[in-house]
Amino acid sequence: MSEKVAQAHEIRNYPGLPAIKGEDLAAAFRNHLQSSGIEITEKRVGAVYAMGDYFALQIGEEMAEARAVILATGVVAANPLPGEKELMGRGVSACATCDAPLYRGKIAAVIGYSPREEAEAAFLSEVCAKVMYFPVYKGEPDLPGTVEIIREKVTGIEQADGKRIVRTESGTYEADGVFVLREAVAPDQLVPGLEADGAHVRVNRKMETSLPGVFACGDLTGTPYQYVKAAGEGNVAAISAATYVDAIKKNEK
Amino acid sequence: MSEKVAQAHEIRNYPGLPAIKGEDLAAAFRNHLQSSGIEITEKRVGAVYAMGDYFALQIGEEMAEARAVILATGVVAANPLPGEKELMGRGVSACATCDAPLYRGKIAAVIGYSPREEAEAAFLSEVCAKVMYFPVYKGEPDLPGTVEIIREKVTGIEQADGKRIVRTESGTYEADGVFVLREAVAPDQLVPGLEADGAHVRVNRKMETSLPGVFACGDLTGTPYQYVKAAGEGNVAAISAATYVDAIKKNEK
Repeated sequence: MSEKVAQAHEIRNYPGLPAIKGEDLAAAFRNHLQSSGIEITEKRVGAVYAMGDYFALQIGEEMAEARAVILATGVVAANPLPGEKELMGRGVSACATCDAPLYRGKIAAVIGYSPREEAEAAFLSEVCAKVMYFPVYKGEPDLPGTVEIIREKVTGIEQADGKRIVRTESGTYEADGVFVLREAVAPDQLVPGLEADGAHVRVNRKMETSLPGVFACGDLTGTPYQYVKAAGEGNVAAISAATYVDAIKKNEK
Repeated sequence: MSEKVAQAHEIRNYPGLPAIKGEDLAAAFRNHLQSSGIEITEKRVGAVYAMGDYFALQIGEEMAEARAVILATGVVAANPLPGEKELMGRGVSACATCDAPLYRGKIAAVIGYSPREEAEAAFLSEVCAKVMYFPVYKGEPDLPGTVEIIREKVTGIEQADGKRIVRTESGTYEADGVFVLREAVAPDQLVPGLEADGAHVRVNRKMETSLPGVFACGDLTGTPYQYVKAAGEGNVAAISAATYVDAIKKNEK
């Protein structure tokens, strides 16, 4: 979140901090986390699987376990590409570190929506025989020389003869795996079985989603996209999650 | 709100303002309001009536009009007295300045839950033939000598022969009108027709109540009772109310 906050010009409606610059609000949040002894882990969760009484989180090639999960991923700004949803999990992936092993020695196409995704493409280039990178942003990608950068507007993803086809305004590119990498993953893609409402996840006033043990807060839960709404929902989600975990622990005794 | 906030010891979970004292958070909110040019009116609204395309607010002996109303009254801490709900509007009132004219030259009993209510009792003493004051708090009430202060625990309100009876642990007191004055009025009492859920008002995720044009936020809408939850809900309620008023204005063109 703090990256998005820092980009904001001036925020006038965060009660208690009048007319604060985005970068100052982001700093205030970081400072608050530090003073509370809460650590930030800069890892990307590729998928969250409900396993009954716990959740399995896929983090790159590792797995982590959790009793409850609070989703605070923000919203996906861009619409999915034609074919993206249909082929997701069948040759199309939203997480390079998760699925790279599937394409060892093969051809990968990476559609990257921000410079952040370049690290994922670089990682794939160590595993795959060939990586094509389609940047969906301005600026020159900083990538190993082995990655082929293709500056063409992607119009969709197709499938033919067991291969994936990336279609651009100028041509088509064949690959074994296509990685569509965005800052935020669609919630029902991140957590299979989660009830979505368009780009948002459905929640009630306790910030409970359709899956017991999964909570959500912030822009992900719907408009208005506002800092203090997100903060308030985070508070409610945290309390609901703590209550949920407490109840599980009591049952186990 | 700022009075309650100021009483809080230390607030650790208002994001951006770590480990802030209640009085400092209250000062930060007041400062924010001032810097935004928003004025606070220290008047007590006795009732809000839906009039179709506008709302009439009873403020003492004045009336005000509004296109939309956002309720942020907090919650009623105390349970209603036995008989209070049943007799409300029939000899029992929650607003002295609203209903004083009904008891001109008659006998009034005032059950006051905080020193704030003393001003209401003093006002009644100018209008009524006799005023009995039952303080439900410690400390000596500061009231005109004509007001009879009765330090007995009130156990209920009854009705007999067209009179109201205040019953205490030690006796009974007859009056024409009984005023039960609390810091916060039950939402469905403040806004007739509003759908309540116990002491709370029912809202959806847009902070809309059951009455179009009436929005609510904060503790009034339910647990958890948390500062940043209230702030976030206030943000959503304000945006919803603005959208509602805009839509009305467009329809009028």
